[in-house]
Amino acid sequence: MTDSIQARLDAAGIVLPAAPAPVAAYVAYTVHENVVTVSGQLPFKDGALTQTGLCGDSVDADAGYAAARVCAINLLAQVADACGGDLERVQRCLRLGGFVASTTDFHEQPKVVNGASELIGEIFGDKGKHARAAVGVAVLPLNASVEVEGTFVIA
Amino acid sequence: MTDSIQARLDAAGIVLPAAPAPVAAYVAYTVHENVVTVSGQLPFKDGALTQTGLCGDSVDADAGYAAARVCAINLLAQVADACGGDLERVQRCLRLGGFVASTTDFHEQPKVVNGASELIGEIFGDKGKHARAAVGVAVLPLNASVEVEGTFVIA
Amino acid sequence: MTDSIQARLDAAGIVLPAAPAPVAAYVAYTVHENVVTVSGQLPFKDGALTQTGLCGDSVDADAGYAAARVCAINLLAQVADACGGDLERVQRCLRLGGFVASTTDFHEQPKVVNGASELIGEIFGDKGKHARAAVGVAVLPLNASVEVEGTFVIA
Repeated sequence: MTDSIQARLDAAGIVLPAAPAPVAAYVAYTVHENVVTVSGQLPFKDGALTQTGLCGDSVDADAGYAAARVCAINLLAQVADACGGDLERVQRCLRLGGFVASTTDFHEQPKVVNGASELIGEIFGDKGKHARAAVGVAVLPLNASVEVEGTFVIA
Repeated sequence: MTDSIQARLDAAGIVLPAAPAPVAAYVAYTVHENVVTVSGQLPFKDGALTQTGLCGDSVDADAGYAAARVCAINLLAQVADACGGDLERVQRCLRLGGFVASTTDFHEQPKVVNGASELIGEIFGDKGKHARAAVGVAVLPLNASVEVEGTFVIA
Repeated sequence: MTDSIQARLDAAGIVLPAAPAPVAAYVAYTVHENVVTVSGQLPFKDGALTQTGLCGDSVDADAGYAAARVCAINLLAQVADACGGDLERVQRCLRLGGFVASTTDFHEQPKVVNGASELIGEIFGDKGKHARAAVGVAVLPLNASVEVEGTFVIA
């Protein structure tokens, strides 16, 4: 793929927000050697959650997918910050951890977390191919429907 | 220990399956420097889940243990794939993350995830001694009873 | 900051316990290159859990915070063990993973996990600034209210 990351962001209609601030006593990411560990991101957009509630209850898989995509946009914003604004420095997404607030009869966590995984693939191509764990949790901070954390290798 | 990994797999009666394909938009493992990060593995055997349902409800700790062991066999299959088929290249299992689909009154997650931890110990000996987090989640993809992810150092 | 780690532990009124033994078939931490991966720590003190039950039910956010602080003290004990007793060797806390046993209407997981995050900050200063994921799980081992895992860089 020869497109620039910026071109792919544009194609996806994504304007990266300012990297969201953590909601508590920690930082948004750490860097050790060339690995960036990004804190769990909630589906914040313009300072508000785009989706709250449990998947399987008030939230269906499509709405969960959309929320996971917003989480991934925030992951990108954090990684961009770690890269001094230059996402071309990303060498690989190593892993995403996806937590889906779920009723006990909702089993489509993979489909929901794909909202994050597919965005990472869209933007980074082969460098976006990551390992993943996706699980259904009882509830998330601020009643968010999805939380996604990630680790990335940067140059 | 002087036994080969293959001898230990044989002793445990384990024939490694083909590495299961991810159920969504990601890859089964990533490799950075010499660390393999394996995606969350479900208790798939021959293409079907060996155990579904919540521990504490339809699934007891022994059945959960058996499911976690199947998850670990799939972890081994992925690591073997990362090693070009040669598990002798494994230097250390660094960490397992065990997610147990649980009712809120089931507290034996450690016993369940031991199904994975003990298999890793059986096969790798001291190299299999890993850090671990085991938690009880509301529900897992496809209604699986257990999901286990892992990180391994390879030569 | 010029205070020694020991002075900060003293100021916080913390006497590190012996590193708690794992409750199952794994080890308390692994070390690869200079990264220590610590297993999920429960709020054990003097061999007993200081807090059991679900946050949102019998446990409020303040009690959860106190339990998370105990988890973090146990993390410190494990890291101290990994450092041969010398916490001055800690270069950075890279990440904490906080699991809060929660009813589905409890949304203050960040406040609870701050009990761990703030202790790490108190003791390590800038070196304690970590990435974090905090989620609400259905239930935890032994009915513990909180579990916290962590990764640390040591010299």
